[in-house]
Amino acid sequence: MKAEIITIGDEILIGQIVDTNSAWIGQQFSLNGIEIYQVTSVHDDREHILEAIRKAEEKVDLVVITGGLGPTKDDITKRVLCEYFDTQLVFHEPTLEAIKVRFANRGIDVNRLNQDQAMLPESCTILPNKLGTAPGMWFERNNTIFVSMPGVPFEMQYLVEFELLPRLRETGRTKAIFHKTVLTQGVPESMLADRISDWEDALPKHIKLAYLPNPMSVRLRLSAYGDNEATLRKEVEAEIEKLRPLIAESIFGYDEDTLASVTGQMLSANGKTLAVAESCTGGYISHLITSVSGSSVYYKGGVTSYANEVKQQVLGVSAESLESVGAVSEEVALQMVKGVKRLLNADYAVATTGIAGPTGGTEEKPVGTVWIALAGQNKTFARKYVFVGDHRERNIVRSAQTALQLLRQLILEETSH
Amino acid sequence: MKAEIITIGDEILIGQIVDTNSAWIGQQFSLNGIEIYQVTSVHDDREHILEAIRKAEEKVDLVVITGGLGPTKDDITKRVLCEYFDTQLVFHEPTLEAIKVRFANRGIDVNRLNQDQAMLPESCTILPNKLGTAPGMWFERNNTIFVSMPGVPFEMQYLVEFELLPRLRETGRTKAIFHKTVLTQGVPESMLADRISDWEDALPKHIKLAYLPNPMSVRLRLSAYGDNEATLRKEVEAEIEKLRPLIAESIFGYDEDTLASVTGQMLSANGKTLAVAESCTGGYISHLITSVSGSSVYYKGGVTSYANEVKQQVLGVSAESLESVGAVSEEVALQMVKGVKRLLNADYAVATTGIAGPTGGTEEKPVGTVWIALAGQNKTFARKYVFVGDHRERNIVRSAQTALQLLRQLILEETSH
Repeated sequence: MKAEIITIGDEILIGQIVDTNSAWIGQQFSLNGIEIYQVTSVHDDREHILEAIRKAEEKVDLVVITGGLGPTKDDITKRVLCEYFDTQLVFHEPTLEAIKVRFANRGIDVNRLNQDQAMLPESCTILPNKLGTAPGMWFERNNTIFVSMPGVPFEMQYLVEFELLPRLRETGRTKAIFHKTVLTQGVPESMLADRISDWEDALPKHIKLAYLPNPMSVRLRLSAYGDNEATLRKEVEAEIEKLRPLIAESIFGYDEDTLASVTGQMLSANGKTLAVAESCTGGYISHLITSVSGSSVYYKGGVTSYANEVKQQVLGVSAESLESVGAVSEEVALQMVKGVKRLLNADYAVATTGIAGPTGGTEEKPVGTVWIALAGQNKTFARKYVFVGDHRERNIVRSAQTALQLLRQLILEETSH
Repeated sequence: MKAEIITIGDEILIGQIVDTNSAWIGQQFSLNGIEIYQVTSVHDDREHILEAIRKAEEKVDLVVITGGLGPTKDDITKRVLCEYFDTQLVFHEPTLEAIKVRFANRGIDVNRLNQDQAMLPESCTILPNKLGTAPGMWFERNNTIFVSMPGVPFEMQYLVEFELLPRLRETGRTKAIFHKTVLTQGVPESMLADRISDWEDALPKHIKLAYLPNPMSVRLRLSAYGDNEATLRKEVEAEIEKLRPLIAESIFGYDEDTLASVTGQMLSANGKTLAVAESCTGGYISHLITSVSGSSVYYKGGVTSYANEVKQQVLGVSAESLESVGAVSEEVALQMVKGVKRLLNADYAVATTGIAGPTGGTEEKPVGTVWIALAGQNKTFARKYVFVGDHRERNIVRSAQTALQLLRQLILEETSH
């Protein structure tokens, strides 16, 4: 089954919001053997929406439309769908009842705009939305299915999971796809490609390889297409078995693994604990670690020592070091990492101190300068990095990822012998 | 000038990566008066790419293509462009030289795959890429401009900023757009729409209003289209002056403001400082605060007290409370907030303790239960929230945003009289 996603809304086109809906639907569809042929984002504009639906109908079996279903005047999807399917809006009692119950729970009265939300196209099947006021709509014509859903992410996700996917599975028109992604770091894309070139050339036709680089790592995704998911899984895993020895030292995980989750697994397998002291990363390392479910087993906690007095009073950094070499220095990074390890009584600790920018740089210590310190069971050290560019968020992310990378290497070293 | 963005790559369609490139380009183009007509995401597939470019050429003046320019076998954009423009790949000496310099700096040899990256379409203008190995390409045909850039975000951003936009401005074909967004919270979309209905109906034809709801707030975006940006700005600001009294108490900021930035401005205007103690939010509040440039002026720092012993030893929470009522309780939240305020010697403090999930819930304290405590200059209190759903990341985000919302209200209260 081939699908196209049409997202409606000026906010996506002007970049005010990032279209995370399409990515989420893409993931769910892939897991369910539905291929996404294309994603198209269009304006809240009648003609443009009609044209996008018309073009999609020519190419795919399933057209998924998100957005433009709110109670307000800029949302026009419902009327455009009536025009496309030559039907009319009729009053749908159960939808109004559901809206009334939702609002009563919040102590709010239903107004005219909400009542309009219960006016729905006569020829569609209504998909009830338990998390919002606009229901989903399911149309069929010839052999094509059309589904319209609100663009609010958690409402759309609810409808896909509990209404759309169950109905699509019933049609028996879904096919099997299996993806697995190998996560690597430390080797640039072109060198990686060189090393695995023979293996890549020998891949069977129905298994495709894609390189997905980003500044901190290169991901290799294998996608297999066929009839039976269990067979595809076996074939992909056999290919990965052949790949692994070629690039063993650069692989750090698979699929949804992150540096934080992989590091966490190593800590918990060895019964070790972790603490973090952050200055320039401002809590982001701690956030990455605690985004992993179950992290409370190995993560004791952290101190964000933004002010120098907090570095001194909580972490025990010496006033003299702060005075003589400054907060962004090897000395202070080492004192921070030792301080937090002792204070939180942990087996491993990480510390960062640097200049995230865009302001605060000097000639000697430009924006992007970061000292990262690590403390393990036998070893304590600090390393300096100078990331290029004065983009605050990017420098925070790179500093945090590099810290986790160093932590992973240290744990590997200390627990493998 | 009207543009279409075509993003190439299976990774976007299967949802492995979220297409942030289109949003970023959309923002930059909007600021430069270029309207985005459509965003289309297609497979790494020759025919599909050709068709997307052909359809775009019919509708717009500028076709921006990202992705598919890497050194590896799955990247086919360059060859497809040669086919489309009926030209051939020729060797481009300056590009190979640039690649050699980049690699020499990293101590890596140039391989065959990188040499291939210096083979470029004969009929295009090369846009040098200082941050990567694949340059941008600029084609013109009839009155349409086509630009192809790598999909790696920081390389694409560099090319847009330093190569594409300056060249587009030279064409003199850009027009004026002005956007301003009003950020509100605490009033649902439909009630807001009711209150401002008369104002909305009276808006001039060239100013459009859009409602952008998300779980924590509703944003109202005004977009004005015309010839002169300064005039549009004045008109939009005059409309916002009329809007403001209708919903004064729900407006917390404009455009790129966040709860963290707005709260930070209030703190620094009043010369006050802030500290944070986090359990279930795990450092995320601290990350939001420190994502604001200049936050070191008012932010002293925070303690992520994930383990109970850290709550006791660092923040001074009593062992008895942890034993009798548990970590997720009003008592512990209050002790955490008082503890961190004292420890870091701050004027304001926030604390969170809860169950982010997906596991760890009980009948009495289900996943999503959070106690948020606030301490100001005269007042200390805690409030309980029960967020619905066991989605860890969503519960962390909602807890953090709610904490910042309460902090903003408390500062407003304590500094306005």
